[in-house]
Amino acid sequence: MTINVGILGATGYGGIGLIRRLLRHPEVGSVEFGSRQWSGRTASEAWPHLAGLTDQTFIDNDAVIDKSDVVFCATPHRYTAPLVAQARKAGKRVVDLSADFRLKPDIYTEWYGIEHPHPELFPESKYGLVELYRELLPGANIISAPGCNATAVILALAPLAAEGLLGKNINANVITGASGAGRGTSDDLHFSQLNETSHAYKVAGQHRHLAEIEMSLKYAINQQRVVAEANDTKAPTVTFTPHLAPMTRGILATCTTFPDHGITDEKTLFSLYRNYYSGDPLIHIQTELPTTKAVNGSDRVLISVRKDPRSEAILTFAAIDNLGKGAAGQAIQGFNVAFGFDETLGLCLTGDWP
Amino acid sequence: MTINVGILGATGYGGIGLIRRLLRHPEVGSVEFGSRQWSGRTASEAWPHLAGLTDQTFIDNDAVIDKSDVVFCATPHRYTAPLVAQARKAGKRVVDLSADFRLKPDIYTEWYGIEHPHPELFPESKYGLVELYRELLPGANIISAPGCNATAVILALAPLAAEGLLGKNINANVITGASGAGRGTSDDLHFSQLNETSHAYKVAGQHRHLAEIEMSLKYAINQQRVVAEANDTKAPTVTFTPHLAPMTRGILATCTTFPDHGITDEKTLFSLYRNYYSGDPLIHIQTELPTTKAVNGSDRVLISVRKDPRSEAILTFAAIDNLGKGAAGQAIQGFNVAFGFDETLGLCLTGDWP
Amino acid sequence: MTINVGILGATGYGGIGLIRRLLRHPEVGSVEFGSRQWSGRTASEAWPHLAGLTDQTFIDNDAVIDKSDVVFCATPHRYTAPLVAQARKAGKRVVDLSADFRLKPDIYTEWYGIEHPHPELFPESKYGLVELYRELLPGANIISAPGCNATAVILALAPLAAEGLLGKNINANVITGASGAGRGTSDDLHFSQLNETSHAYKVAGQHRHLAEIEMSLKYAINQQRVVAEANDTKAPTVTFTPHLAPMTRGILATCTTFPDHGITDEKTLFSLYRNYYSGDPLIHIQTELPTTKAVNGSDRVLISVRKDPRSEAILTFAAIDNLGKGAAGQAIQGFNVAFGFDETLGLCLTGDWP
Amino acid sequence: MTINVGILGATGYGGIGLIRRLLRHPEVGSVEFGSRQWSGRTASEAWPHLAGLTDQTFIDNDAVIDKSDVVFCATPHRYTAPLVAQARKAGKRVVDLSADFRLKPDIYTEWYGIEHPHPELFPESKYGLVELYRELLPGANIISAPGCNATAVILALAPLAAEGLLGKNINANVITGASGAGRGTSDDLHFSQLNETSHAYKVAGQHRHLAEIEMSLKYAINQQRVVAEANDTKAPTVTFTPHLAPMTRGILATCTTFPDHGITDEKTLFSLYRNYYSGDPLIHIQTELPTTKAVNGSDRVLISVRKDPRSEAILTFAAIDNLGKGAAGQAIQGFNVAFGFDETLGLCLTGDWP
Repeated sequence: MTINVGILGATGYGGIGLIRRLLRHPEVGSVEFGSRQWSGRTASEAWPHLAGLTDQTFIDNDAVIDKSDVVFCATPHRYTAPLVAQARKAGKRVVDLSADFRLKPDIYTEWYGIEHPHPELFPESKYGLVELYRELLPGANIISAPGCNATAVILALAPLAAEGLLGKNINANVITGASGAGRGTSDDLHFSQLNETSHAYKVAGQHRHLAEIEMSLKYAINQQRVVAEANDTKAPTVTFTPHLAPMTRGILATCTTFPDHGITDEKTLFSLYRNYYSGDPLIHIQTELPTTKAVNGSDRVLISVRKDPRSEAILTFAAIDNLGKGAAGQAIQGFNVAFGFDETLGLCLTGDWP
Repeated sequence: MTINVGILGATGYGGIGLIRRLLRHPEVGSVEFGSRQWSGRTASEAWPHLAGLTDQTFIDNDAVIDKSDVVFCATPHRYTAPLVAQARKAGKRVVDLSADFRLKPDIYTEWYGIEHPHPELFPESKYGLVELYRELLPGANIISAPGCNATAVILALAPLAAEGLLGKNINANVITGASGAGRGTSDDLHFSQLNETSHAYKVAGQHRHLAEIEMSLKYAINQQRVVAEANDTKAPTVTFTPHLAPMTRGILATCTTFPDHGITDEKTLFSLYRNYYSGDPLIHIQTELPTTKAVNGSDRVLISVRKDPRSEAILTFAAIDNLGKGAAGQAIQGFNVAFGFDETLGLCLTGDWP
Repeated sequence: MTINVGILGATGYGGIGLIRRLLRHPEVGSVEFGSRQWSGRTASEAWPHLAGLTDQTFIDNDAVIDKSDVVFCATPHRYTAPLVAQARKAGKRVVDLSADFRLKPDIYTEWYGIEHPHPELFPESKYGLVELYRELLPGANIISAPGCNATAVILALAPLAAEGLLGKNINANVITGASGAGRGTSDDLHFSQLNETSHAYKVAGQHRHLAEIEMSLKYAINQQRVVAEANDTKAPTVTFTPHLAPMTRGILATCTTFPDHGITDEKTLFSLYRNYYSGDPLIHIQTELPTTKAVNGSDRVLISVRKDPRSEAILTFAAIDNLGKGAAGQAIQGFNVAFGFDETLGLCLTGDWP
Repeated sequence: MTINVGILGATGYGGIGLIRRLLRHPEVGSVEFGSRQWSGRTASEAWPHLAGLTDQTFIDNDAVIDKSDVVFCATPHRYTAPLVAQARKAGKRVVDLSADFRLKPDIYTEWYGIEHPHPELFPESKYGLVELYRELLPGANIISAPGCNATAVILALAPLAAEGLLGKNINANVITGASGAGRGTSDDLHFSQLNETSHAYKVAGQHRHLAEIEMSLKYAINQQRVVAEANDTKAPTVTFTPHLAPMTRGILATCTTFPDHGITDEKTLFSLYRNYYSGDPLIHIQTELPTTKAVNGSDRVLISVRKDPRSEAILTFAAIDNLGKGAAGQAIQGFNVAFGFDETLGLCLTGDWP
């Protein structure tokens, strides 16, 4: 017996990634396309690459919630929590790609500058970064999919956190493509303004994904300890610097830390990473430095590590597709684990080259 | 019972497209990766996006031919015909992505400037443009996959040819991405030289795909006539002008002709195109002008037509992925038809967006 | 004694090109930056590449007109004509980069769908395509700078027109970069939507630059004839097909025609082009096919021609920078001729490479 | 009386930048174009954007040295030192864009893996980073222009070094365009391989520019101290991580350090930077985060700083054009200072936008 699902925000980049994967998911039955603004229009009006492949039309949010067993929300933060509440009231389980259930309500307010619209629902939500939080997800009513930059940075650093190898100073730089900012137009994303340029943005503690990063690194540290100790753990402070580059897809995280007590060599680091992710089908630890091209169109994560023999820094690199593991792929991975399916059902393992 | 296949030239862009599709083809068993130069090395050394997904190694051409029921050649023209001969001698059937069996040996010599290495094999080869030559393909021993530019132009113009609507003057302009020229480096394909520029190349009758284009348009004309007449048909002469643009994938063909006797309106043109391609699962006729983005990563063809009310020109537009319908996708489509499988088995129908 | 100038619309891409050139123009004194919306803010707020180089602020349109001897309008069509009227009333001469004075008022209405706001000013305007209309420009009160696509196509075809070599069927295809559409954001110009794609737009007689193209080709034909004949000349009908490609700058025009009576060879064509443009410092006729990269940042035009020996088509190619010869460069070239200065004063002859 | 100059390696990207600037340098007379391989061919064969502008031909290295008062070397490291020796023997002064005279011979051997070809010439060479080494340059016989990445990183960090604000841990990440690697083709720079991707390279102490970075930061520290102390200064150790992004030009340096003793706020940091660079016409300190687009085609440097209130890190950002301040522009700036000319003669202060 398959599960009927629906997608709110099916006209956005998160939405089309969900469409692509859910339509071929073997445990999924019907897939409803929801859109407040495009309701009544056909899918191929919004998505030229679907022309001739489907007659399905967008329907409104109420109809989606009504027809679905599970509702995927690829809608903007702040506007999503009420939709989640509506879906939960109707007894539906939710996978939320927005930021609305990633952080505890008080922390949410601190970073997003508004009262959380539905703090009462937070206890039934789980942060859907499967590689770290896998054991919390089975049966979850709300799976809150992580942010794209956060995903790359956390996965690059988690093994160091777990091993106590994060020094006081942690740098996380990412280079990200334009599609992470979604389909909406803006001056910064205008082709003529973004082509042939690169720049940093939201630096020095301003990017909201930082909250998820520090929360998850603390979680990784605590996972390795007895509970008593864990309560004393302070979240590490990360200096997070995102950069925009002229590419559509891809996030490359380059993280550096200077551990107080060293480990001898790269070989040990590679063992640590391979062990930590030994049960994770989407993670590949490799000796070569990862490129974002190698994960374009894929839900996998390529990770490598280095020890700088001169500065004694540990460097870690992670490449993801911001719309794959960074969005729709990760949401469905979380859905799979929450519902007891094989973790990679419906996912994209390889993209095209070049 | 599945078919074991092998790919010669598996380290090229044609080869990786075949790997992607053949590995998931339900009628295909083993898939051997052949490479003269990379023999003994693992697939992921050549293809970073396969890292962690396969341990398979490249093997040499002889081993591929030995182990395969069907040999796919994604090797350069001139060097391919001898490999085809070797495979045929070993009793294997062949799908050839090179130009070596697209043209009659004398025409081949005219366009490629060399004697055809194996003219004796030409009679058992069929031109694998399924939409026009479908009835010739079942049982073929050598399927010769068309050139990428030729595919886009022929499909844009064939319905006009069949209907007698090609005027004396036929323009076929294409805009093509860099990957059509393959993985080999060159001055023209250097990032710094191709980024932020566009230019025409091999104009005024110099591009070899022209021979395929005119051959196929003549074929389309003849298909509509009794045999006696057909022998008198002259191939139409096309002014073919390819352009390189700063994109990795995609071919957009813009064709114009001025028919001697007009048809009244676009509506009639759309009917003509829809009828002509009514049995073709990879072709979609649409009112919107096609974009190459909508077929990136896909084996489909998007086509539209216009009648210019001022100049009375007919304009036709076709968008393909040069590495999809223009290469690996088309080769497997031909393979499917030759072997009696469903035409779209193993193919990519939708790519990612954006 | 220098001339004081002002730029209306100085925050747009046309405006910044004017700023760049006028600031170094040896006959120009002060250069005022006008902007309705940015009035009072500094130039470097709108133009990051000017940061630290100027303290100049934008002032409003009235102030610009008041302070200038010559007013350059880089403002949208329809809104520009009233500004031109205001400037003329104040006794100022005008260089207009908008479409408002390119076409006779009745033709303007036909193509732009509105009544011309100031038809009474049309008689004192001259079309500023210097290479064709040079003799009309000295002393002109309103110089109307041509459209970017029109410039490339007209210059590619004018020598054929003058020589009577335009056949009945004329194709003009252009590939254009994103900046031609200006600084305003739109779905089509969103980085994620334009990167890795190409498509045609406004085909089959819909692009307004067509009116300028046909007007100027008729003019070129008439220039070679006695007046009596000229009145009988009909403008040739052009099939114009613009395409957008993922580049910021550059227009490549590829034009094809099939003359009724041939000329023998390319050599004759090259002579014709070299003679026709022998007095034009911005035009370079070359045997190599032109690339837009070679004119990025430059106000020159690279042109080449071919005779297709198979189809007997004449092909002509012209590459310009849409923001150079296609906009600011051309406007200042017209200004120079109108005021009796050396034609290339202030212009950019070479850009950077790569 | 003007100075006659010559360029060795005039067919490379460094060479064309020198041509552009030296041809318009008011103190420069003749400019010879040298090329071993292209000798006898015209400049526009190598440089399509010069077509129609010059008839000058490339001449061989001997002829260049013979005809020039000053020889600019834009030739590969290792091959340049002998050319410098030849020029010096002929009594000519040299501006060297290669790495051959940037480092003391023993350090050179350590980083470049070969014996220095002409250690005897090192004493008469000066490192041409004008902002730090200005006082050493007047009268220098060999000006050794810094590496592009080194330039961006040093200028981003020097004020902190001088002020004693570099902590033990210093991160320098750069994002660089393809042209930094020159005109030679390679797999990594193939359009299809570099478009739509980003990756790190030569990490963990492998990039040779690191030697220049640490040398110059030590120099900046020493400049602020009495000589006795200076001898004790150890060069700071930098963790340098370069990344390639799909753009032709531009380097963005993002540097982070965690000073042991803090300074209170960003305001103080901005004062420090503005003071440090108060006499430097190419440096602009700005509150906005710099973009590489704003320096494309320019020889200027845009710098900004931030204090992260959460992590207490100091972040510094510098944007340059790798072919401007990172190559030809900087070489000519050094030449100007060495010869007593105004520092910005011949330089490009603004590029085009967009």
